[in-house]
Amino acid sequence: MAAEIVNPRSDSTTDSTTDEPFDPAFALHRGGKMAVQATVPIRDKDDLSLAYTPGVAKVCSAIAENPELVHDYTWKSQVVAVVTDGTAVLGLGDIGPEASLPVMEGKAILFKQFGGVDAVPIALATTDADEIVETVVRLAPSFGGVNLEDISAPRCFEIERKLQERLDIPVFHDDQHGTAVVTLAALRNAAKLSGRSLGDLRAVISGAGAAGVAIAKFLLAAGLGDVAVADRKGIVSRDREDLTEVKRELAELTNRAGISGPLETALVGADVFIGVSGGTVPEAAVASMAPGAFVFAMANPNPEVHPDIAHKYASVVATGRSDYPNQINNVLAFPGIFAGALQVRASRITEGMKIAAANALADVVGDELAADYVIPSPFDERVAPAVTAAVAAAARAEGVARR
Amino acid sequence: MAAEIVNPRSDSTTDSTTDEPFDPAFALHRGGKMAVQATVPIRDKDDLSLAYTPGVAKVCSAIAENPELVHDYTWKSQVVAVVTDGTAVLGLGDIGPEASLPVMEGKAILFKQFGGVDAVPIALATTDADEIVETVVRLAPSFGGVNLEDISAPRCFEIERKLQERLDIPVFHDDQHGTAVVTLAALRNAAKLSGRSLGDLRAVISGAGAAGVAIAKFLLAAGLGDVAVADRKGIVSRDREDLTEVKRELAELTNRAGISGPLETALVGADVFIGVSGGTVPEAAVASMAPGAFVFAMANPNPEVHPDIAHKYASVVATGRSDYPNQINNVLAFPGIFAGALQVRASRITEGMKIAAANALADVVGDELAADYVIPSPFDERVAPAVTAAVAAAARAEGVARR
Repeated sequence: MAAEIVNPRSDSTTDSTTDEPFDPAFALHRGGKMAVQATVPIRDKDDLSLAYTPGVAKVCSAIAENPELVHDYTWKSQVVAVVTDGTAVLGLGDIGPEASLPVMEGKAILFKQFGGVDAVPIALATTDADEIVETVVRLAPSFGGVNLEDISAPRCFEIERKLQERLDIPVFHDDQHGTAVVTLAALRNAAKLSGRSLGDLRAVISGAGAAGVAIAKFLLAAGLGDVAVADRKGIVSRDREDLTEVKRELAELTNRAGISGPLETALVGADVFIGVSGGTVPEAAVASMAPGAFVFAMANPNPEVHPDIAHKYASVVATGRSDYPNQINNVLAFPGIFAGALQVRASRITEGMKIAAANALADVVGDELAADYVIPSPFDERVAPAVTAAVAAAARAEGVARR
Repeated sequence: MAAEIVNPRSDSTTDSTTDEPFDPAFALHRGGKMAVQATVPIRDKDDLSLAYTPGVAKVCSAIAENPELVHDYTWKSQVVAVVTDGTAVLGLGDIGPEASLPVMEGKAILFKQFGGVDAVPIALATTDADEIVETVVRLAPSFGGVNLEDISAPRCFEIERKLQERLDIPVFHDDQHGTAVVTLAALRNAAKLSGRSLGDLRAVISGAGAAGVAIAKFLLAAGLGDVAVADRKGIVSRDREDLTEVKRELAELTNRAGISGPLETALVGADVFIGVSGGTVPEAAVASMAPGAFVFAMANPNPEVHPDIAHKYASVVATGRSDYPNQINNVLAFPGIFAGALQVRASRITEGMKIAAANALADVVGDELAADYVIPSPFDERVAPAVTAAVAAAARAEGVARR
């Protein structure tokens, strides 16, 4: 699983600035975090004549005759484009494509490190949804999959949907679905720990951006009893007249209880709090939740509910931070999801494949399940193989696998 | 110089077809020829918190404040996009983007192997010149340079020109300029060997595609006495009424002698033949050239003049083949040209940088200059460092370097 680490640039770059901040993150990022390598030798002209002209011509001709062979004889089925427009980068917002590159490189090396998947950062100089779609469609022959990243809502929904319609390779907006998969895995284990079924649970999500919308839909698809979503103006409900198209759809699907008002109203008696908003939830609202509630306060670096507060009322507490137990970290999902999809050359990533990923992730915890261990560590080496196998099997079962 | 070779897929892929041709080129291409690797460690959560969140956020913020820092803290200035539309692939023609990928991967690993430059194959699902331009402009934030490859004429000229106008990173169509640089290097040494100056030489080029047009312009810029270009209909001259815009421009620049008629007419008394056409030149036409002529018959796999015939009349013979002396191979030029341009963050690749590359390449031969050694081997380890240094120095001298 672990990729070999080399640093070909350790002595090759010099400063273009003399004011490098004294910080280990800057030192580590100097020269970038990734490289390309040949996987075949080019030692002499015989090697060259096989890997390049004239030998390569036969391989090209074979693919021209039988396009499916591109998966066998190139890295296409091994490589994912990590595509962003730099509009919703971490908590930093719209910082543009260049400034987003360190995150995209980081994502690319996580793909490699945890999933054995090659990935290439593609930060686009456009924020127009149609232009992004056209650009990615034109890039698609070179890639086995597309991971959309840090594209702001609501454009991210439209871009993903249109790309999924037009491409026959997996298109996956990780900020939506990766987060949703890991959340469901943790929630399944929390429910198991407390002897409840998902259908028994009423969840409240704070945040109606990419992650909030996707988590709401996914938890309902997985069988949760009810889910309500709150944005800055309060609970998304059918009686609101200020809703975007995406939130109107959400109002139809969620909030079966028909609650209106602020987030706090929805939290009264709720079983699950899921924070993907970055705001702060008052302690009184946490106290008003049902006994034995689950609090997943995932905002980074400041959880919506501080874990010390959450523990006073909740039976299971999770955050997005690595320095507390139960970290909800997308890296648990996306490497294995793409590795599994690419392994069977899936044409897309279905709800069933995502649910299989969540279940496999939850199952890694196994008999060690405890309140402070509902989700495995990103460094648990069982994670990616389990997710990969489950996703590949689900793709076959759902008829989207091509081998 | 040499990249480390690994093959992470040696046991990981299974056949999707059972009819793999028995050929070492197919065996070598299975699973592709390249991979991505991390150049920083991700062993534990401390590493993760530097290479990814939360540490990466500081780096992103710094680039957002000072965009030039993208060159210091990402791989941008280290990575070239190898962009094609698959319309003029080797001698195979318009085989489409997927079938072109093995060539683009080959190119990418040659960039790495010979120039230490990372490169990513980008085969586009469009052949529309404006769409290609728009797509590459949108990709540009992620790359330090663009190598255009195997795009058919005349679109290749327009695409390159428009991209050069719109981007502040090097854009280089290797089929044009790479070939031209290596040709000039060989010609300079051939002239030196026979005690002639470039200004004494009249050259005839067979082929008015990407390579032919670029070689003609470049040789004139380098000081050749005269150059005539012939396409399938004969010598490109001002009296022809069937010329495209590109060839009309060529008619203005070239053929100062004002010759009309077939290729053979131009060859009478010519000092240099340069074949980039794939046709065949009759022996009588070769015999009609000036005494001590140079014959560079570069078509692959069948030179326009067989070397055995050429040697009967010419003092220096070069081909595009690795199994004869004096191979005119682009790999002698493009890795070092991009390495030099990236090293100084050149905004473009000027004529002066290309001439510096040709001169450096010619100079590698040094005192060993001989009729069968006018150009070094691609595996001569002095080549890329010499070209890189010369190109970087020329970029500084010409004011296009940014550091």
